Amino acid sequence: MAETLIQIGIVGCADIARKVSRAINLAPNAAICAVSSRSHDKAAAFAAANGLPLSAKVYGSYEAVLEDPEVDAVYMPLPTSLHLKWAVLAAQNKKHLLLEKPVALDVAQFDCILEACESSGVQFMDNTMWVHNPRTAAMANFLNDAQRFGNLKSVRTCFTSAADSDYLNRNIRVKPDLDALGALGDHGWYCIRAILLAANYELPKTVVASYEPVLNKDGVILECGASLYWEDGKVATFHCSFLANLTMDITAIGTRGTLHVHDFIIPYHEKESSFLAGTETSFDDLVTGWAKQPIKHTVNTDLPQEALLVREFARLVAEIKFKNSKPDKKWPTISRKTQLVLDAVKASIQRGFEPVQIQE
Amino acid sequence: MAETLIQIGIVGCADIARKVSRAINLAPNAAICAVSSRSHDKAAAFAAANGLPLSAKVYGSYEAVLEDPEVDAVYMPLPTSLHLKWAVLAAQNKKHLLLEKPVALDVAQFDCILEACESSGVQFMDNTMWVHNPRTAAMANFLNDAQRFGNLKSVRTCFTSAADSDYLNRNIRVKPDLDALGALGDHGWYCIRAILLAANYELPKTVVASYEPVLNKDGVILECGASLYWEDGKVATFHCSFLANLTMDITAIGTRGTLHVHDFIIPYHEKESSFLAGTETSFDDLVTGWAKQPIKHTVNTDLPQEALLVREFARLVAEIKFKNSKPDKKWPTISRKTQLVLDAVKASIQRGFEPVQIQE
Repeated sequence: MAETLIQIGIVGCADIARKVSRAINLAPNAAICAVSSRSHDKAAAFAAANGLPLSAKVYGSYEAVLEDPEVDAVYMPLPTSLHLKWAVLAAQNKKHLLLEKPVALDVAQFDCILEACESSGVQFMDNTMWVHNPRTAAMANFLNDAQRFGNLKSVRTCFTSAADSDYLNRNIRVKPDLDALGALGDHGWYCIRAILLAANYELPKTVVASYEPVLNKDGVILECGASLYWEDGKVATFHCSFLANLTMDITAIGTRGTLHVHDFIIPYHEKESSFLAGTETSFDDLVTGWAKQPIKHTVNTDLPQEALLVREFARLVAEIKFKNSKPDKKWPTISRKTQLVLDAVKASIQRGFEPVQIQE
Repeated sequence: MAETLIQIGIVGCADIARKVSRAINLAPNAAICAVSSRSHDKAAAFAAANGLPLSAKVYGSYEAVLEDPEVDAVYMPLPTSLHLKWAVLAAQNKKHLLLEKPVALDVAQFDCILEACESSGVQFMDNTMWVHNPRTAAMANFLNDAQRFGNLKSVRTCFTSAADSDYLNRNIRVKPDLDALGALGDHGWYCIRAILLAANYELPKTVVASYEPVLNKDGVILECGASLYWEDGKVATFHCSFLANLTMDITAIGTRGTLHVHDFIIPYHEKESSFLAGTETSFDDLVTGWAKQPIKHTVNTDLPQEALLVREFARLVAEIKFKNSKPDKKWPTISRKTQLVLDAVKASIQRGFEPVQIQE
């Protein structure tokens, strides 16, 4: 069995790598074979604190993981501004790539990463975990059901969290030289992905940022929003912020149905999550109550969503490694669409909230 | 007891008057003493079908109710374009006024109605029922609680319903000569009111309509939305439509708390309703679930919200009639603010989605 496990090296010991290490340990088809940081001590401490296999090699440089022939794939939780350099290098070293989101500072950078992956024949996937939860598949089934949901008319998403002053002063996500996209790159990424999911990954034609985004002194976005418009009249809005209580909503409204969810990115509970779905909801005759209201759907999972993500990534890598398959295009295509919308929001902010057309 | 009941005349037998008749019958301090329609037969049929007291007079003209000395107050469910004429006439006839929403085609018209009420010393109230539900008071308590909610940062509301083709072709709410404000006046009214409630009735400074509202062939709004901005950085968005499945949401996010509700206008159940409230919601250490999630609050009521509205209206009228009090300013002030925002949304649509400043 062990020889069929996909061997993953971790490039960078960011906080999120704790969760992903656990996920790799839980995934039945993957194992951690190496971990690296810019400092050997930090990598060793991470390995000890996070239950990494004793066999996992500890490296004091990112290059060392990329050059290790035992490593099939890397998980890369580096700040966004470092993605271009290290993701391209990983691909050039024939390492399959699980990359943190946002995938790049802009789609031009992301295209360089994708080109490197393509010319090396390696799999790309971004680390957006919630889309791998079976609840998300159940929600997508509902949203794509002509009988239960009809055609999407509007979708509204938000993701806010209350960063403390330490975060707002020091975290990489508010530093222009590290995660220059700030709340848009971090929280907005999820909102945009949820909107695209609801729209069955059809890109909007126009994006308009909301007035009055909040920027920090270095110009990094702490709060913003946007409206998205499609050719057929669908509309979407989202709002993301580091400056408000933890909240994450999707409300998707179709011609025949409605979906509500309040914990779409991180379910309240790891192994059981739910959403509300209504079809042809209606009032009673005298409009004093509802004759038909939304119904709660609960979905169980044995593995946490991040372990399901790792399992899916390792499955695709195994298809390539053991069966000579081509890299799968689905996930990189969705990543690229998310980044395209994100770029359009940023461009609209920079152009004084003018509408920005999206071109694929 | 009977002589202390406030005697209400109904001016117009619109469908909504069925529900309000029941509410007046349920309210402990009000009674229906007259009903009118442009046709005597229609008014008589309405009285018979809706359990009106046998003592209630049936009139074939609106004027007759306004001239009946037994009538203390009128409930007026006429199309919006008729409000100016009939509401002013009612006030001039010293009838206290419970008026359907939207209160007027614009704030200038509404100011004429308010001036007529003021100079006659009669009470004005609009017929927005949900704000009289004790759940709404519980939500407002939460939203105004510095510890549980903090300062409002953003609020998002929507109200959509799926009108059938008969409604879209024939209903007064899509006729330019009757309810010219369409979905904005009908559904948007509730969304705007909810936003104002969350903002503790502080008016936004700027309103920007969303691109691509849907208008019918006569130019009546079938779907639209807007973003609202306050001086202190609060933001709100709403979306209203006659063209999508029945949905009504508020998501209000503060610095310390979050409120969610999915049935804010018409609770799912008449006598028991709920909302979700979270304070300092948070993830667990590894971000695999929530350490603190929103909690469901349930509120019971003996009387339906529309009967509580009638009771409040009749209470204020009784204060004037029996205790020589002045008319209460709270409700007309809130109505006027709602109309001001509604006017700004319409103006922004007409000006090509330009920002419109609100001046009180």
